[in-house]
Amino acid sequence: MENTLSDDELSDYLDFAETLADAARAAIAPHFRQQLVIDDKGRSLYSDYDPVTIADRQAEEAMRVLIREAYPSHGILGEENGHEKGTCDLTWVLDPIDGTRAFITGVPLWGTLIALSNRSGPLLGVVDQPFLRERFTGSRLGSRYVFADESGDLCTRPCAELGDAVLYCTHPDMFAAEPEHSIFEDLRGRVRMSRFSGDCYSYCMLAFGLVDLVIDAELKPWDIHALIPIIEAAGGVVSDWTGGPAVDGGKVIAAGDSRTHQAALELLSKAAARG
Amino acid sequence: MENTLSDDELSDYLDFAETLADAARAAIAPHFRQQLVIDDKGRSLYSDYDPVTIADRQAEEAMRVLIREAYPSHGILGEENGHEKGTCDLTWVLDPIDGTRAFITGVPLWGTLIALSNRSGPLLGVVDQPFLRERFTGSRLGSRYVFADESGDLCTRPCAELGDAVLYCTHPDMFAAEPEHSIFEDLRGRVRMSRFSGDCYSYCMLAFGLVDLVIDAELKPWDIHALIPIIEAAGGVVSDWTGGPAVDGGKVIAAGDSRTHQAALELLSKAAARG
Repeated sequence: MENTLSDDELSDYLDFAETLADAARAAIAPHFRQQLVIDDKGRSLYSDYDPVTIADRQAEEAMRVLIREAYPSHGILGEENGHEKGTCDLTWVLDPIDGTRAFITGVPLWGTLIALSNRSGPLLGVVDQPFLRERFTGSRLGSRYVFADESGDLCTRPCAELGDAVLYCTHPDMFAAEPEHSIFEDLRGRVRMSRFSGDCYSYCMLAFGLVDLVIDAELKPWDIHALIPIIEAAGGVVSDWTGGPAVDGGKVIAAGDSRTHQAALELLSKAAARG
Repeated sequence: MENTLSDDELSDYLDFAETLADAARAAIAPHFRQQLVIDDKGRSLYSDYDPVTIADRQAEEAMRVLIREAYPSHGILGEENGHEKGTCDLTWVLDPIDGTRAFITGVPLWGTLIALSNRSGPLLGVVDQPFLRERFTGSRLGSRYVFADESGDLCTRPCAELGDAVLYCTHPDMFAAEPEHSIFEDLRGRVRMSRFSGDCYSYCMLAFGLVDLVIDAELKPWDIHALIPIIEAAGGVVSDWTGGPAVDGGKVIAAGDSRTHQAALELLSKAAARG
């Protein structure tokens, strides 16, 4: 049976998700910009190199400890330590450091991603950037950002035409194979500007109304769950390249305006059939 | 006659450069993450689109006013308002916002670049990131960073082999033409990891010892002058793709370790003859 949360329950879970973000922040911050031992997990989104550090592992474990204690019936799905099945419909979906490549090179665009999801998808999401002391949260109750002492609502901006759109993607090598490569380059040729890198941060800037499109491929569920409620409550759209749900990861598109989403989907759907 | 500065003079100019950075910060900060009017200068480093905003223009003018007042004999070369020739050998080389594409998309990896240069090259450099309250400075007196209440010396890290190197580049489209494209892809295939975007920030992370190589093409003098003293005093090397001085911009390579610099140059020099 699907768990339908009241506003009060959702609000309590959001508070708890922020407690998890605080714990991850405390675990990660001392390791940022240190010369860390970097292990290579060997498989990767778009290369043979998949770095992981003690910071990723300790942050995920810190969050798992808190979840097990507070909500022993909930499931946990995390990048570093797999799936602990729960006994109810709710699962915490965790990526302790999304953007480990940014993290290990000192660039503060990585984030801790935390979602609470049921079988239909994520109910709430948190993105935390410890170095900037910046946090983005979202649920059906709304999307917010906090930066140091500032805070505000998140709201995507209108973008009627692909030709006006600013596009972000994590890395060009995500689109190395055909037909993705040609389709992606076609799209790149139609937008006003494209930028690479950014990981979760580009999606947050889309929710902020400063980016119009983010396109990625080969994502895992923990790369996208937390971002969906933030973007949707800010007025944006997240889907896979066929226009279906993005909750399984894979090929994902986020747009601030449904018109740009539709225009980009028309191009991308040609490549959507492939894994 | 070339101006040879004493340590005291150099130190005074560094203080003044930081005053310029403060003025630029005050001019830029109110515009970050606002919905700005974005003008298109039409030519660009690597596309037909070259965005500029009121923040770029006001920050450069704020710095020019201070320089004219304090050092009327000095020249000024800035991205937005061209070259004011001085009557002595010293010129301030300014890029009010290096990374305007990052700036207009809310991503805090842009920076204000300030150098004081004579005809041989830059004597001091400052990179300021207002949103992060982060500043990098360098001269023959040393390289330092300040982040909020933290500060420290900058020092590149050893990297003996290309296969261990982390490479950053501003944008893949900088290497769209042949033979640059093939040579760049060859290099990318040999390093451990490559990332795009970053602008001046990647060079600062190289000085910080977290990145091993940064390669760009089509730079202007104001894109690189401020970075040279910061990287060199941190133990790194900056040159063009032939190994010659990088002060004219164009094709630039920065390395934290001279061995990686040499290994990369062997590949890149094949493409160096072209503009």
